Amino acid sequence: MSTTIEGIAASPGICIAKAFRLQNQELQVVKTSVTNTEEELQRFDKMLEKTKAELDVIKTETSKKLGEDKAEIFAAHLLILSDPEFIQPIKDKVTTDQVNVEYALNEVAAMFIAMFENMDNEYMRERAADIRDVSKRLLGHLLGIEIINPSTISEEVVIIAEDLTPSDTAQLNRQFVKGFTTDIGGRTSHSAIMARSMEIPAVVGTKHVMSVIENDMTVIVDGIEGKVLVNPTEDEIKQYNAKKIAYETQRKEWAKLKNEKTVTMDSHQVELGGNIGTPQDVKGVLENGGEAVGLYRTEFLYMGRSQLPTEEEQFQAYKTVLESMEGKPVVVRTLDIGGDKELPYLDLPKEMNPFLGFRAIRLCLSMQDMFRTQLRALLRASTYGNLKIMFPMIATIDEYHQAKSILFEEKKQLQETGIQVSNNIEIGIMVEIPSTAVMADVFAKEVDFFSIGTNDLIQYTLAADRMNERVSYLYQPYNPAILRLIKNVIDAAHTHGKWVGMCGEMAGDEVAIPILLGLGLDEFSMSATSILKARSQISMLSRSDMKTIAEKVLTMQSSEEVQAFIKSTVLNR
Amino acid sequence: MSTTIEGIAASPGICIAKAFRLQNQELQVVKTSVTNTEEELQRFDKMLEKTKAELDVIKTETSKKLGEDKAEIFAAHLLILSDPEFIQPIKDKVTTDQVNVEYALNEVAAMFIAMFENMDNEYMRERAADIRDVSKRLLGHLLGIEIINPSTISEEVVIIAEDLTPSDTAQLNRQFVKGFTTDIGGRTSHSAIMARSMEIPAVVGTKHVMSVIENDMTVIVDGIEGKVLVNPTEDEIKQYNAKKIAYETQRKEWAKLKNEKTVTMDSHQVELGGNIGTPQDVKGVLENGGEAVGLYRTEFLYMGRSQLPTEEEQFQAYKTVLESMEGKPVVVRTLDIGGDKELPYLDLPKEMNPFLGFRAIRLCLSMQDMFRTQLRALLRASTYGNLKIMFPMIATIDEYHQAKSILFEEKKQLQETGIQVSNNIEIGIMVEIPSTAVMADVFAKEVDFFSIGTNDLIQYTLAADRMNERVSYLYQPYNPAILRLIKNVIDAAHTHGKWVGMCGEMAGDEVAIPILLGLGLDEFSMSATSILKARSQISMLSRSDMKTIAEKVLTMQSSEEVQAFIKSTVLNR
Repeated sequence: MSTTIEGIAASPGICIAKAFRLQNQELQVVKTSVTNTEEELQRFDKMLEKTKAELDVIKTETSKKLGEDKAEIFAAHLLILSDPEFIQPIKDKVTTDQVNVEYALNEVAAMFIAMFENMDNEYMRERAADIRDVSKRLLGHLLGIEIINPSTISEEVVIIAEDLTPSDTAQLNRQFVKGFTTDIGGRTSHSAIMARSMEIPAVVGTKHVMSVIENDMTVIVDGIEGKVLVNPTEDEIKQYNAKKIAYETQRKEWAKLKNEKTVTMDSHQVELGGNIGTPQDVKGVLENGGEAVGLYRTEFLYMGRSQLPTEEEQFQAYKTVLESMEGKPVVVRTLDIGGDKELPYLDLPKEMNPFLGFRAIRLCLSMQDMFRTQLRALLRASTYGNLKIMFPMIATIDEYHQAKSILFEEKKQLQETGIQVSNNIEIGIMVEIPSTAVMADVFAKEVDFFSIGTNDLIQYTLAADRMNERVSYLYQPYNPAILRLIKNVIDAAHTHGKWVGMCGEMAGDEVAIPILLGLGLDEFSMSATSILKARSQISMLSRSDMKTIAEKVLTMQSSEEVQAFIKSTVLNR
Repeated sequence: MSTTIEGIAASPGICIAKAFRLQNQELQVVKTSVTNTEEELQRFDKMLEKTKAELDVIKTETSKKLGEDKAEIFAAHLLILSDPEFIQPIKDKVTTDQVNVEYALNEVAAMFIAMFENMDNEYMRERAADIRDVSKRLLGHLLGIEIINPSTISEEVVIIAEDLTPSDTAQLNRQFVKGFTTDIGGRTSHSAIMARSMEIPAVVGTKHVMSVIENDMTVIVDGIEGKVLVNPTEDEIKQYNAKKIAYETQRKEWAKLKNEKTVTMDSHQVELGGNIGTPQDVKGVLENGGEAVGLYRTEFLYMGRSQLPTEEEQFQAYKTVLESMEGKPVVVRTLDIGGDKELPYLDLPKEMNPFLGFRAIRLCLSMQDMFRTQLRALLRASTYGNLKIMFPMIATIDEYHQAKSILFEEKKQLQETGIQVSNNIEIGIMVEIPSTAVMADVFAKEVDFFSIGTNDLIQYTLAADRMNERVSYLYQPYNPAILRLIKNVIDAAHTHGKWVGMCGEMAGDEVAIPILLGLGLDEFSMSATSILKARSQISMLSRSDMKTIAEKVLTMQSSEEVQAFIKSTVLNR
């Protein structure tokens, strides 16, 4: 018999595949004293051999499946395990200090990692990550805990996880991951956003998938209804295959709008863009008829690695995106790290409230070397397309002034050394902090554009962590307070002849789109897979009717009231 | 030679006393295997005797100083240490499992604590706290770590701490604590608020006091300038004694305004209230000429204990406050727990962003038994004075509707059982979440009053944790975004004939007062010690001039611009 688990539909589509559990593993090492050190060293040698044998297999398989170059990393790991300069100090420590080998390994590895991380040579710094990885693998064997490495997935699977961090997702092999389902998270958690950007179905916030689903069980993820079927019957598999086909048929209908403009019934035109995380995502935006990249989240360039990306690496990424978009607008958001997006190698202190902490532009204005490197890469890439630069988490006009003057300094320096920089780069800010929404008139005089980041704007305006299920009822995109702030931003921008986009989840939401159209939003940027559906919806709406609708909802009392009104009057439900 | 450490002046005044370091102690217990269990048990017996001897001394001294009843707790602790039902299982565990006694003690204590905590009898549940306290004391001796108990301070001291939690401060012996200085925190951290409410000087955010100051060093805390002098010279002690006298003279000048009304030069009257945490604080409010209690933080009733306060305990506290205020208004805020104010016995899950989490009204609407008990206690006390009830952290009108209907249900039930309840209780809300400030017109139709909580309103509006030093530059009371939201709240309230108070730190701030007066704020509630200074300031201002000033600052770009403008035009600096 099959089991159905309900959750939040986070990315549309249907998939049927085997389960792959991705579990976060904290390997805890306790120092214990060991009397029989001989025995301890024998245990070490045994596990060392076992780890090497395992790496040999992985190396061969990776080489076969993904090519020689992808397998190199495992050769490097094998070398470390055969290096007496690494192994001998561990053994010495066991003998001399009479401690358990797990503890000795941890100590020695930490010492080497610190040493390599502090070297001035990039190649050597990369060794630190290798030592960390291989030590974890060896430690896993010593502790008898199996280590799961998401990058080694090599068959079609549905990922089952408590939650997925941005760095987990960065490591996934996109070829084989057919769907996600997680215990926690909501429509705007990173795993959900990532699933939409990978165009694979996802159901999040299920609470139970980790406790119910074992590895290799067959799982259906229904990202349209928000359901997960475990061990489906033959009938269910048939039924869902039919549903999958129906969904794909509707997608084909929408696909006819791919090369159309986005125009309302009464000829009001808006722009629909896609949100991307990597240069590879551009393909999805174009295939789904995107007219722009409304948000390029550059932080993925910084994740899943052991040190900052170089200017050249970034330049190549930005250039690729700009060129692939063939002159269409590309809004690049400068590094938005911190909050739930950590970069371990920056070694930032833990914060009590990371969402209210040292992140995004706050961090960039303080760590200026890192910020300037990114800006130089962007400026150098600017001649390859239609670049717009956007600063995240701007809370005060002073922060904007600082960020802009750093950008101009770098531009001047580049030009002085003869490097070409476009003179038509628009500079804008994210409006995602209430103060900035309230002060939009002041900002509108100075910026070229606004992009409203609703995910954060909602969580700050209602003071509710959108990742915290206990207060998730307060994540209210249709709360009139949010709609009023959005109106204030759009009105202020239009008064000063500037355009306003939106790159939060709300921009692709069928309840929000009519209101946003009525409020005068100029650009809607969303998951690529939502673009065609949105274009279809907008083509059936009248701008002037939506103006009346928007005026009406601004006077309402609550999110529920707004939602019910839009559903009954616009969506006819 | 003396050392001067600079910090943030958090509570005015000067004090000179010996240092008392209050260090948070995490007693870490690691399980180790023990071969010689005989020796281990001897160690246990020795430390058991040492702990008993120590408790005997404390008991005798407490009895002498504070009376027999205060010493009872230590008699109870002694009984536990002599109880074979507690001691024998520990010894058995050492022998049978061959483990260290610290581990055995921890395990057995945890078992007893869990057992007592789950009992249905209140007296028995209190035993859990006793076992926890006495086990910690014993564990401290076993681990060779001295346990510091702030409630046992018995000479005049300056508290030196990294930070003070609300539960630390709840345990302090107010008679002997002459001043505070902490490494972290700002003007609005709890230690700062507490210092002002205790009317003792405090300097916070010094970064260095814990590393520089040892126990018993002489320390001067200058809460006016924000300086801490360590090992002052004779000259410095003389100089600071003079400064102390000068400050006290100025206070005497202000004291002449104690029984005056708060009136501007052009005869506009406002109300000045005090913020309190306990019934004992009322004295300070009245002595400082407070016309109301503008904020009674009831969470202190819930802190520093092992279970919820009973309805009767709460009733007594509220009745005492209402009676002591002799008919003057008392605004009681219902339980605002969560965030940085934890109640261990509620055993709430850790949150990633507690300031954006499950706290205050969110928690009360979910844990309704606890909430209803508080409301009943308040309703029963309502006939003893001029009670106003205020709900904290209201983000949506729906939350207000829920809270109000629970209050009305309890009122109806009490009246049905013949208990008298006042029919003139005003019901209001804190405006401390941006959504509520934006939607003030909707709320103003339904509430009796607003009280603006600026500490939280600022941190949410600028999305910056006010306790996080890395983003403390964004804690901007004068940011025009904040001032515009405040204006929106006041205008909406006045349109509907309601009054607006402010109970955040900003209400007592000399730069903010002229603006708030101009915006039309009706009630200012602050630390008791700030009241007379504020009354003096207001008596020298003209309401109509301040209106012009307020209009002007609303058009400014930044906090810095506003502050400079007020300083030069109003404060003449």
